[in-house]
Amino acid sequence: MFVKNCWYVAAWTDEVGAEDLFSRTILNTPVLFWRDSEHIVRAMIDRCCHRLAPLSLGKKVNDCIQCNYHGLIFDKNGQCISAPAQTRLPKMSVQTFPVVEKNQWIWIWMGDENLADPNLIPDIFWYDHPDWAYKPNGHMHYPVNYLLIADNLLDFSHLPFLHPTTLGGSPDYASVLPKVTRNDDGLRLEKMVNNTEAPGYSKQHAGYDENTKVDRWMYYDFLIPSILLMDAGMYPTGTGSYEEKPANAISFKSAQALTPETEHSTHYFFGQARDFALDDHAVSDAIYNGIIQAFNEDKEMILGQQRNIMLNPSHPMKALSVDSALSQFRWLIDKKIKAEQVETTQQIYTENIV
Amino acid sequence: MFVKNCWYVAAWTDEVGAEDLFSRTILNTPVLFWRDSEHIVRAMIDRCCHRLAPLSLGKKVNDCIQCNYHGLIFDKNGQCISAPAQTRLPKMSVQTFPVVEKNQWIWIWMGDENLADPNLIPDIFWYDHPDWAYKPNGHMHYPVNYLLIADNLLDFSHLPFLHPTTLGGSPDYASVLPKVTRNDDGLRLEKMVNNTEAPGYSKQHAGYDENTKVDRWMYYDFLIPSILLMDAGMYPTGTGSYEEKPANAISFKSAQALTPETEHSTHYFFGQARDFALDDHAVSDAIYNGIIQAFNEDKEMILGQQRNIMLNPSHPMKALSVDSALSQFRWLIDKKIKAEQVETTQQIYTENIV
Amino acid sequence: MFVKNCWYVAAWTDEVGAEDLFSRTILNTPVLFWRDSEHIVRAMIDRCCHRLAPLSLGKKVNDCIQCNYHGLIFDKNGQCISAPAQTRLPKMSVQTFPVVEKNQWIWIWMGDENLADPNLIPDIFWYDHPDWAYKPNGHMHYPVNYLLIADNLLDFSHLPFLHPTTLGGSPDYASVLPKVTRNDDGLRLEKMVNNTEAPGYSKQHAGYDENTKVDRWMYYDFLIPSILLMDAGMYPTGTGSYEEKPANAISFKSAQALTPETEHSTHYFFGQARDFALDDHAVSDAIYNGIIQAFNEDKEMILGQQRNIMLNPSHPMKALSVDSALSQFRWLIDKKIKAEQVETTQQIYTENIV
Repeated sequence: MFVKNCWYVAAWTDEVGAEDLFSRTILNTPVLFWRDSEHIVRAMIDRCCHRLAPLSLGKKVNDCIQCNYHGLIFDKNGQCISAPAQTRLPKMSVQTFPVVEKNQWIWIWMGDENLADPNLIPDIFWYDHPDWAYKPNGHMHYPVNYLLIADNLLDFSHLPFLHPTTLGGSPDYASVLPKVTRNDDGLRLEKMVNNTEAPGYSKQHAGYDENTKVDRWMYYDFLIPSILLMDAGMYPTGTGSYEEKPANAISFKSAQALTPETEHSTHYFFGQARDFALDDHAVSDAIYNGIIQAFNEDKEMILGQQRNIMLNPSHPMKALSVDSALSQFRWLIDKKIKAEQVETTQQIYTENIV
Repeated sequence: MFVKNCWYVAAWTDEVGAEDLFSRTILNTPVLFWRDSEHIVRAMIDRCCHRLAPLSLGKKVNDCIQCNYHGLIFDKNGQCISAPAQTRLPKMSVQTFPVVEKNQWIWIWMGDENLADPNLIPDIFWYDHPDWAYKPNGHMHYPVNYLLIADNLLDFSHLPFLHPTTLGGSPDYASVLPKVTRNDDGLRLEKMVNNTEAPGYSKQHAGYDENTKVDRWMYYDFLIPSILLMDAGMYPTGTGSYEEKPANAISFKSAQALTPETEHSTHYFFGQARDFALDDHAVSDAIYNGIIQAFNEDKEMILGQQRNIMLNPSHPMKALSVDSALSQFRWLIDKKIKAEQVETTQQIYTENIV
Repeated sequence: MFVKNCWYVAAWTDEVGAEDLFSRTILNTPVLFWRDSEHIVRAMIDRCCHRLAPLSLGKKVNDCIQCNYHGLIFDKNGQCISAPAQTRLPKMSVQTFPVVEKNQWIWIWMGDENLADPNLIPDIFWYDHPDWAYKPNGHMHYPVNYLLIADNLLDFSHLPFLHPTTLGGSPDYASVLPKVTRNDDGLRLEKMVNNTEAPGYSKQHAGYDENTKVDRWMYYDFLIPSILLMDAGMYPTGTGSYEEKPANAISFKSAQALTPETEHSTHYFFGQARDFALDDHAVSDAIYNGIIQAFNEDKEMILGQQRNIMLNPSHPMKALSVDSALSQFRWLIDKKIKAEQVETTQQIYTENIV
């Protein structure tokens, strides 16, 4: 079960080239992404309605997609406009999906397309802004349900333990719980840790002295379906505040997105922008590689959880205070899924009386 | 569910050498094939009745098969004739199956052996006839149910799309629907396309001019369980007819057979004979390689269908006119399976009253 | 379903080094093995009670185990003694298991720990005794249920067929059935074959003439859950008896243990000690390699059985006289599992009335 009426990240814009027929499974549905003659990204189900052949094995013909099995042609709206072996054109179509290209990501709406409001897509301006620099195209594939990864992103008390040399910092970082606020579309987590050790990756780049203690902030929204938007950074303790940052403060803006592929696998998109050393590609690479190292540390742990879950699928987890955010988020997701089910039932009911 | 009372192709004769204990799973049943001292192919279940060990790990002993686990010996009829550790010979046997070696293929009957009439085996004389040449031993393994491959073979409107450089020809080829006739044991498809482009593989071999248009025929029977017997060919348009072929007509005779391994996997046997350049092995190789290329194009598409089916097993296909033959064939198969079930029930009932 | 209240072999002592966090799944349960500061082996479930992370990805801290995900620390008794992000220590614990290190093997008790009597562990003194020599650490992993391997070990009539060049001997060896005695904790099998051919491995090492016939004994206990303890050997026929062995008799003592990993996979531990050529490592290696060769012959056969079982899971086996021991053993196992279920039910009932 997935939330359907929301925007999911489907791909980095680079992944769908001008001539590509790019296939990616999202919410258990095979989807074909391609660009029309105006370079606009289009999405339709990657499954011909005739014999279920993948349309991504076909080709583009005049802003339409031709299935390579029996030659059926579907236009941008999914309507079948040609069937070579038929005397009469069959009334057939394939499903299309609203897609929006914005801030380097391609977003897709898998639910009721009447509700697909592009204004609901979060503004990840730092992926396109001259004041911010990063290495794009961060992408990992996970053979687990997306909520197990969301759990990880909703509780950063794991940082000093799992990522001691990269994102980590000192153990006291774990003992400061974030302030968690629940909104309709997700959670806000605010965590400020004063007078703590700087994490490995910032020591490296900010130029702080080895013994410099820092005030470190991590403020982020975690939005349904699973979009993390973070403002984080630090400055030497005693030199300023979050509101009035000193000149040698360093800031990061991160956007991360989990998109279920199936109930048991997930696409993970991420990028980490900074406000310093903007033109230094070596810094971009170093930060990216640090992220990859840390995310692989996460992955090893999460795959271990998954293995234990598969050995005993009904064994319960036990909640701690650190689980406040992730428990609330799972509750929000459940609530939204149930609301969508009720809407669907009502819709069917209304259609029947009309 | 499979049709049981019919002949399935089990192997090319070459696959079962004089000393081999050859194992192949057919209709979910492990079968051991071997040759007795008169070089006659025998088939018995590849599963000792004692502890279910594969007999193919054993050895031949005087026209019998000895299990290599506990030494039980079974004769050609499956009867246990020796049990080393027993004082009294146990009344035990393993199932044997009627097999017939004919025209380079080994055929097996998996149903009621009283019904196994060798005269029901189709005559594929061109595999053994001096007027025809081909490269034998065509065999592919497919991880899908056999009906998905039968669909492909029952609708050649896909040729110009999926096989443009090999079997294909021009798109007009797709628009001529075959005449489909239903018989008790399968379908007959007759397709004659006049004044069309010659497919890649024939341009190469027939010596026609690049611009020569041809009349192209493809007449075939598709018999239960899934045996395709085809007479196909072409001649330059305006130089003759199917009945009165000109000297530079080229003809092919093809036999292809699908044999279910399990509900989800299939053996595919095939050979394509020609009536020209009979002694030229390079032509045999070129035609064989073209077939393999085309069949791999089919395989990529069929595996794509399979992947889509597995993502959403209950999603329906939508029928077009081109699906007439394959819809009828699936109907014939269903009918035959149901008839066999009724026969089995009646048999049990009759045995009980007698 | 497994017998729970008994000692299983978990590992060779060498497998758990002083600094290791060694993970092995036993009876479908992930278990962490480690050594405390006194070098004593400890076992706890390899699954943090919080979010089910593997504790084996954590580290040792002062004779405790710290989970590397959120830093929880568990002491030797499984009690949580530290939770970095909590203001109040949560009442939490992870399951620990009784373990005993004895005669080179680490034994674990997966059932009711009040019943875990170390005196129930069999005495495999020859793994530690100066009169016996062997190469240790024999271990194979099997993707089948353990009972299929137990079947193999409970019927040595397969030796001359499956292991003709190693353990085998002549076919007459198969025709002498062992005397089988049933006890509460397993079976005793006694087999003495007089005037038979010496098996390959002993011809090689005992220095007997090629044509020497031997009297060969194989006496063993096969104990629940699946522990084989064997006394075997031979001497030239006519030179003595089992009770009064001649000087050139050779003896072996073998211990083999099957430990279920899951319902469909098994750990197999084994070692074969001898009473001759004690200081000759080449003989240790040769015997070990012969065992490995023979056990691979077993494995090929057992995997073949498994494949046949998976094709038709409900197909029955047919019993012969040689199956007496293995049928009785399966019966004993079933009886013990049922008894444990009754005990558990009674316990729950008693606890409820008190």
